[in-house]
Order: sequence, then structure tokens, then C-alpha cells
Amino acid sequence: MTGEADARAERIVRALTARHVTIAVAESLTGGLLTAAFVAVPGASVVLRGGVVAYDTAIKHSVLGVDAEVLAAHGPVHPDVAMQMAAGVRTALALDGVESEIGLSTTGVAGPDAQDGHPPGTAFVGVAVGATVRSFALQLPGDRNTVRASVVQEALRFLEESL
Amino acid sequence: MTGEADARAERIVRALTARHVTIAVAESLTGGLLTAAFVAVPGASVVLRGGVVAYDTAIKHSVLGVDAEVLAAHGPVHPDVAMQMAAGVRTALALDGVESEIGLSTTGVAGPDAQDGHPPGTAFVGVAVGATVRSFALQLPGDRNTVRASVVQEALRFLEESL
Repeated sequence: MTGEADARAERIVRALTARHVTIAVAESLTGGLLTAAFVAVPGASVVLRGGVVAYDTAIKHSVLGVDAEVLAAHGPVHPDVAMQMAAGVRTALALDGVESEIGLSTTGVAGPDAQDGHPPGTAFVGVAVGATVRSFALQLPGDRNTVRASVVQEALRFLEESL
Repeated sequence: MTGEADARAERIVRALTARHVTIAVAESLTGGLLTAAFVAVPGASVVLRGGVVAYDTAIKHSVLGVDAEVLAAHGPVHPDVAMQMAAGVRTALALDGVESEIGLSTTGVAGPDAQDGHPPGTAFVGVAVGATVRSFALQLPGDRNTVRASVVQEALRFLEESL
């Protein structure tokens, strides 16, 4: 992600710029790499509000507004958590009460250890576009860094298809 | 940053783990890459609360608590802004009123264009450790992505030296 701008991230930035909409990003296992994929695109500042890396599970509740009950019942690796992160980051990064139209999120297990019974490579991506919120589930191969890079790519793909 | 964990980030995570202190990260031009450098270290979850990518300048005020007057007078590329981001992200990511002991921040111009009269490669890093807040200034060569990667490395170095 430190290299050339990802072609898909670039297409998304162009599409959002043309629509005059903004995006906010909430990340867990990707740890900043998904937001960085947008930042790598020249001109991204027009559409990118920013991002929250909610690495500590409690931050998902306190900053992103994920239900504490959902976190307590299911843990952070769950489709509902991904959806609530995507919707919630728009509120967390609202300006003068105006939320971003789009929220994008990741949560999952990078490894090497399992978490809450989920094996490494388990991940969920959330996309909130207006009132519609979707999530999708992934089971990915590879080590910690491979999983993380793959989740970034999958999140960009899912977002592009959701636009 | 998607590759092997950075050796310096790894040493910092080990040092913070040994001291039982936590860290929160506030990024502007590095766009998530600095937080990702910590996330790349296995065991980082013990010390890393999370990060805020305040890419939109207004987010630096609304989420991180940077003085609106300072932003209006100097713009976001300024040592005081870096210091206030480093101190402020500890509050933004506080849990039950308990702030992280350490805050780390970046702000600057990745390029290719100048911003507020600052040429590309101008950057400031802020480090807040307890009640002590420091910033340091950088002027770095290279394109957008090189500048960003260099600021991540400089921020890690400055933090390690500040511990």
C-alpha cells in the first residue's frame, strides 16, 4: 500500500468525486491499510473524511457506537459488528452534524492465533451506502500480513460493487 | 507496511508491553500507515488502542480537539497541530475515562502540490508521553508515497528516542 495507488481505490475515488459523496473508514484487523489505500490516490482528500482504527474492541463501542450487547454476545468478529462499524464511523466522523454518505469497515482475525473460536483468515467487511448496510464474510489463506492485504482488496472490491 | 513487521515498531511494542502502557495514533498525511506499522507486530493489541486518520482538516478539531483558532491561523501543517493531535488522540480513544499514556501523530504535505505555502515533504511529528509533548519538523525528498513511508519511519524513530 506504500507503492502505487491501487487501481480499484483510484476508480472508487473518481466515482465518489463525480457523485460528490464522501466516505469514512472503520478498521480493525487491517489496522489503517484500507484508509491508506484511499490516501494513496491523488485527489482523495475531496472524498475521504478519514478513518478510525478501532484495534481495541472497546473502541468499537465507545467511538464507533457498536452495540455493547452485540460485542458481548458475539465478540468483534461478526457480520453485525462489521455493519455497525460501517454505519457508525459515518457518525463518528460527521462534520457539523453532516455524516459521510458511505461507510466502509473491516473486522476479523489476522492470525497467527484463533480468536473467539474463529480461525485466522476469518473476516467481515461492512459497507453502508445511504440507508442500506451490507456485510460479507471471508475466509482467506495466508499469514497475518497476507490476510490483511487480502481483506483490503476484498473490501475495495465489495465497495465498488456496492456503488 | 504490508510486509514484515518493521524492526523499530517491534522494539517499541515490546518496550510498551514491558511498561504496561498503551498508545494511540493520530495521522494525517500518513493516512493509516503509521497505525498499520504497529498492527503488523504480533502482540500489538496489548498496547495499541487504535488510531484516528484525520484526513479532513475539520476532523482534527472535531475528533482530536485541535484548537480551531490554531488551524485557522496556521493551517494543519504546523508543529502545534502535531502536538495537539498527539495529546488529543489519547482523549479521543480513552476508555472509561482512561487515556493512553502515549500519543503519536503526523501532519504534513505528501504532495505533489504544495499546501498553505508548504512544499511537498514538509511534515511534523508529535509525541505525547505523560505530560510531556514534543514535536519535530521534517523536510523530506521523494514522491507522495516515498514521503509518506519516510514520515512513518521518522515518527517511529522519534517515538523510540522519546521513550
